[in-house]
Amino acid sequence: MERVPLERKVLSENDRLAAGLRERFREHGVLCLNIISSPGSGKTSLLERTLESLPRGERVAVLTGDIQTDNDAARLRRFRFPVKQITTGGTCHLDARMIERHLEDWPLENLDLLLIENVGNLVCPSSYDLGEAAKIVLLSVTEGEDKPLKYPSIFFKSELLVLTKTDLLPYVPFDIDAAADNARRVHPGMEIVKVSNLTGNGLHEWLMWLERKRRAVKTVAQVG
Amino acid sequence: MERVPLERKVLSENDRLAAGLRERFREHGVLCLNIISSPGSGKTSLLERTLESLPRGERVAVLTGDIQTDNDAARLRRFRFPVKQITTGGTCHLDARMIERHLEDWPLENLDLLLIENVGNLVCPSSYDLGEAAKIVLLSVTEGEDKPLKYPSIFFKSELLVLTKTDLLPYVPFDIDAAADNARRVHPGMEIVKVSNLTGNGLHEWLMWLERKRRAVKTVAQVG
Repeated sequence: MERVPLERKVLSENDRLAAGLRERFREHGVLCLNIISSPGSGKTSLLERTLESLPRGERVAVLTGDIQTDNDAARLRRFRFPVKQITTGGTCHLDARMIERHLEDWPLENLDLLLIENVGNLVCPSSYDLGEAAKIVLLSVTEGEDKPLKYPSIFFKSELLVLTKTDLLPYVPFDIDAAADNARRVHPGMEIVKVSNLTGNGLHEWLMWLERKRRAVKTVAQVG
Repeated sequence: MERVPLERKVLSENDRLAAGLRERFREHGVLCLNIISSPGSGKTSLLERTLESLPRGERVAVLTGDIQTDNDAARLRRFRFPVKQITTGGTCHLDARMIERHLEDWPLENLDLLLIENVGNLVCPSSYDLGEAAKIVLLSVTEGEDKPLKYPSIFFKSELLVLTKTDLLPYVPFDIDAAADNARRVHPGMEIVKVSNLTGNGLHEWLMWLERKRRAVKTVAQVG
């Protein structure tokens, strides 16, 4: 997007709203994660595998963003956790106001984990804070190991890189070590997990990361 | 992106510049194509295969857009046609002004075909006219057959859909007929070619389409 003055105003208004959301998430001990990738890198599939793995009583909810359609919400509702689709109608990213509006009838005191699936776009979502505790970026092994260098902002701002579709590694010219090196050139020390949503390989590492984050939030909430 | 008043102004200024470019391309009989897709769908690979297939003397040039790096230009220069990288430095799309500026020292009278590779993004580039004769959208078979419905604008505005990475069809849950149906729900009658840049399968159909477009432009230029 263009760094025109109006956009700076939009961004600073977004930052203000996001700070409010972050404060509310902190108060209620809610871990909020903002999941970002290109279209078709496996965000919805990773959420399917994640919801599938969680016991029915867990206090988990999902907001899923798309330009058009509510396909993703329909896929995710099968797991019986609360899911809402945010249809942006052309806007290339989610923003804090959309999150605020869609949380109005979801009391945060009933939640421990809020998973936000952003619009499929490796560029614009990186500029819009949603009040999340962490951004997570997905990169599928079919997209090429150069992507962290070409789209550095989102790799710099994300706490975790999930390399997806590892089941396709035998069939694509993708150097997974080079991909990790490129990510860490942009973001030294970046955490990386490698998963196949299709076969389930590596999902355990992702779920362990998630569990660690959830425990950290609960500890902070108890101490606070 | 947000439909705020300033953005409308930016878009109408872009449309004005694009109309000027289109007029210049027409005058000089240059076919200009604007190639758009998600990151990693195979835009650069398709251009590699295309340049490789063209006789050395052809009057062809490439502009290739990225947020960061000039990797793509480096890959494409091997084929000895003029190539320039446009590094947008954060902007999520190419615009007509960038094209105008990068054409300043390329006399259009020396060109028959200008291939523009846009920034990897299925959303924002669809709003920015570059003066092209046609937009071309790529969708790789690893991205899911629902994408035309989720990102309708670019499928509606593109003359041709290139389904890429067909060599991976045996390994992914992708229904290629459903993908074509979805594209044609958004864009009735849309032309579709299916290619593998890796194996070369289907490239002939793409090259035939390109040749047909080039001949049409030449005919118009001769008549005019």
